[in-house]
Amino acid sequence: MSASAAKVSKKELNSNHEAGDEASEKEQQEAIEHIDEVQNEIDRLNEQASEEILKVEQKYNKLRQPFFQKRSDLIGKIPNFWVTTFVNHPQVSALLGEEDEEALHYLTRVEVTEFEDIKSGYRIDFYFDENMYFENKVLSKEIHLNESGDPTSKSTDIKWKPGKELTSRSSQAPSKAGKKRQHEEPESFFTWFTEHSDSGADELGEVIKDDIWPNPLQYYLVPDMEDEEGEGEDEDEDEEGLDDIDEEGEDGEEDDDDGEDDEGEDD
Amino acid sequence: MSASAAKVSKKELNSNHEAGDEASEKEQQEAIEHIDEVQNEIDRLNEQASEEILKVEQKYNKLRQPFFQKRSDLIGKIPNFWVTTFVNHPQVSALLGEEDEEALHYLTRVEVTEFEDIKSGYRIDFYFDENMYFENKVLSKEIHLNESGDPTSKSTDIKWKPGKELTSRSSQAPSKAGKKRQHEEPESFFTWFTEHSDSGADELGEVIKDDIWPNPLQYYLVPDMEDEEGEGEDEDEDEEGLDDIDEEGEDGEEDDDDGEDDEGEDD
Repeated sequence: MSASAAKVSKKELNSNHEAGDEASEKEQQEAIEHIDEVQNEIDRLNEQASEEILKVEQKYNKLRQPFFQKRSDLIGKIPNFWVTTFVNHPQVSALLGEEDEEALHYLTRVEVTEFEDIKSGYRIDFYFDENMYFENKVLSKEIHLNESGDPTSKSTDIKWKPGKELTSRSSQAPSKAGKKRQHEEPESFFTWFTEHSDSGADELGEVIKDDIWPNPLQYYLVPDMEDEEGEGEDEDEDEEGLDDIDEEGEDGEEDDDDGEDDEGEDD
Repeated sequence: MSASAAKVSKKELNSNHEAGDEASEKEQQEAIEHIDEVQNEIDRLNEQASEEILKVEQKYNKLRQPFFQKRSDLIGKIPNFWVTTFVNHPQVSALLGEEDEEALHYLTRVEVTEFEDIKSGYRIDFYFDENMYFENKVLSKEIHLNESGDPTSKSTDIKWKPGKELTSRSSQAPSKAGKKRQHEEPESFFTWFTEHSDSGADELGEVIKDDIWPNPLQYYLVPDMEDEEGEGEDEDEDEEGLDDIDEEGEDGEEDDDDGEDDEGEDD
């Protein structure tokens, strides 16, 4: 037998019908049509499974909501919670210039909201106290994912106060935290609100959504909560710029209990 | 303000308590403890969500089962369904030597079974008619995934008939299908049952589980079902060896309706 199986199969279909236990070509065609019908049932069940899983995710998003609310209220009682959390986060701190940090001292509340159908994207809201940098009380960024998961985004226009436009300063001194981590001076953290690249994921958005938001307290408390002398100088591990460690941000330790990540159900 | 935010925060905690609207250090400590409690509630909900999603997946695995059963029965009516399907699959055909194809003409039934908890692995069973190559009626391979998703595997020992051990032939001629696709001659398809590499996913196992098993009919029918003269010569696109297209196999068109893939719920 030297032909490909496809050829052999075809030959048998065309000429080997004398074998009593082989179905006739007509019977085979009927079997194929029945397989197609059964396959449609399987596909329908797959769609139902996806919808049901989405409903579970939506239900738990709702159930978690009051706890996120309560957590935000409690965080509001702690001065500089968010700026400390960002400074302690190795990827975010690399983005912080000295004046970014000053401005972020007025950041009182952060909210991450997934859209109702979850897959289509999310919004991050930053609430600020009145400050010397900009007029806005809230800065928001929305990341929309299209059918194939590619993101587009839009943000609040920042109304900078005169002479305070951090995003147009090319030579902002890196903060102490930033200085330790990289030789180049960082762009302003606030450029995130003006960058709407269509290519690739929103890295900072994903770090905030997937790594910080699930458990911000761990970053607030580390590294120097218990150390009166500490100035954040001793967390030298895992310090890299955001561009280098996109995947670490997505697969960080806080994602452990999500369960449904990366899990097909294709059979 | 030239110090890091962590330092500033610390300073304020230690010396700036005169500001009436700032909580005392004790109140802040209590807030942190409450945040920790709320975080535990959030983590508990995350675990519940994972369990519930697993139950949905298990439910639909059960609901799909009778349709897979029925599909297998119908496939049994079509001679050479599986060998044709494998020959028409660009990645699998690259693994097929000429004698592999002959042996696979006796393959009557393929079954993919995910383990009950889904994440821990799967088994693939190949049922054979009596043939001149080996004594076994069933060849099975089980792939077990540990906690971090790394696979180990075990398989049926193939009881080769004398002189028919395809896995020990170094110079098996590639099949017609295989010849078109690569210059090297393929190892035997059946080496899959003897390879138990601990590193990396089981590529052929995943192609069968995630790409072929969800809808084998599409590969059986393509490329030459309607073409009486066709000998499978015209499917020159997308032909690559298995090693090169692992990800295509996982993200193939048949995975579209899974829904839960790549979707965190980390908010």
